[in-house]
Amino acid sequence: MIEIEIKAQADHRALLSALRDAGATFEKTMDQHDTYYNAPHRDFGETDEALRLREQSGRIYMTYKGKKLDAKSKTRKEVEVEVMDRAKMEDILLSLGFKKTLEVKKKRDIYHLSGIEVCVDRVEGLGDYVELEAMAEDMTEMPEKRDMLIDTMRKLCVKGELIRESYLEMLLAKMSH
Amino acid sequence: MIEIEIKAQADHRALLSALRDAGATFEKTMDQHDTYYNAPHRDFGETDEALRLREQSGRIYMTYKGKKLDAKSKTRKEVEVEVMDRAKMEDILLSLGFKKTLEVKKKRDIYHLSGIEVCVDRVEGLGDYVELEAMAEDMTEMPEKRDMLIDTMRKLCVKGELIRESYLEMLLAKMSH
Repeated sequence: MIEIEIKAQADHRALLSALRDAGATFEKTMDQHDTYYNAPHRDFGETDEALRLREQSGRIYMTYKGKKLDAKSKTRKEVEVEVMDRAKMEDILLSLGFKKTLEVKKKRDIYHLSGIEVCVDRVEGLGDYVELEAMAEDMTEMPEKRDMLIDTMRKLCVKGELIRESYLEMLLAKMSH
Repeated sequence: MIEIEIKAQADHRALLSALRDAGATFEKTMDQHDTYYNAPHRDFGETDEALRLREQSGRIYMTYKGKKLDAKSKTRKEVEVEVMDRAKMEDILLSLGFKKTLEVKKKRDIYHLSGIEVCVDRVEGLGDYVELEAMAEDMTEMPEKRDMLIDTMRKLCVKGELIRESYLEMLLAKMSH
C-alpha cells in the first residue's frame, strides 16, 4: 500500500465550515506526540526518509516512511507497527546509533469525506494546516488518487499552496533560520 | 540491568536428573524462533552486538544485545520490547538497510534454582546445551553473580567448557567450515 498525502496551510474556521457544507463526518480528535530519529549510515534529511515513534492515546507506534515517489504529493512507502514500550524502543534505536532529531506535537481532528481522510492539524510552533490522505494499491493508481485529493482540497476552499515538506522538515527549516 | 549468562554443552539426561536432585522447579517449555539482523553501518559480527526478532508462544519481541562486557560470561546490555507484528517490524528493518543473517530455532525448557534461570536448550542444527542466567543491577555486582553461576553449573555436573559464543555465532561458525 502507498500513502498519498497532500498538505496546505489552512484557515481552520473557513475549513470547518466547508467540511460541514460538504457533508464530511467527524471521526475523532487526538494528540500526537512524535519523536523523529536519524540513521547513523545515511542522512534522512537527504534521502527523504523518516523514522518516527508516535505516542497517541496511550499507544506507541513505530513508523518508517520511504523517500517520496512523486513531485506534487507526499506519496511514499509507509510501514507502521505498534510497540509496547516507547522508552525501550528508543533505547534500542539509540543503542543502534540512531539519533533523536526533533519532536513534533500536534492536535489532529480527523474527518472523512468520500473515502478521503481529512486531518485538521494544529502544530506546536508551526500553526494550522490541513492534510488530505488516501491509500493506493500501487503506483499505477497514484496519479488519479492524487488529482482527486487536489480537487477535493480546492472544493474545501483551501487556498494555500501544496506543501511537500513534512512538519518535521518545516520545523527543522524554521529552526535553521 | 545487566544480563549475566553462562553456557555449556550438556547431556540433558544427566542434567535433568541433577536439576531434580537439586530441587529445581520447572517453569515452562517453549519454542523460540529467532531471526537475526545485521546493521548497514557496522558489522555486528565484529562489534559483538545482536539485533533479533523472536517469535515465542504467538508473541513477537525485538531485542538488542550490546557487546559483551566480560571475558568469561556473556554479560551485556540487553533491551527487549514486544512488537505487535513481525512482518511489519522486519519490513522496517529491511527498509532501513538491515540484512537478515540467520534463523535460530530451539526448544527451551526453563527451570528455576536459587534465583537462577536454567535454560535446557535443544538447538536445531547444533545440539543440546544449558544456559544459566541471572540479572545484576550494574557491573559491580557482576563478578560475584557470575561466579555463583559457574559454581551452580558445576554442581549440576555439567562438564562442558564455558561457551561465550551465542547460538547464532555457533551456527555461523559451523556454516563457514
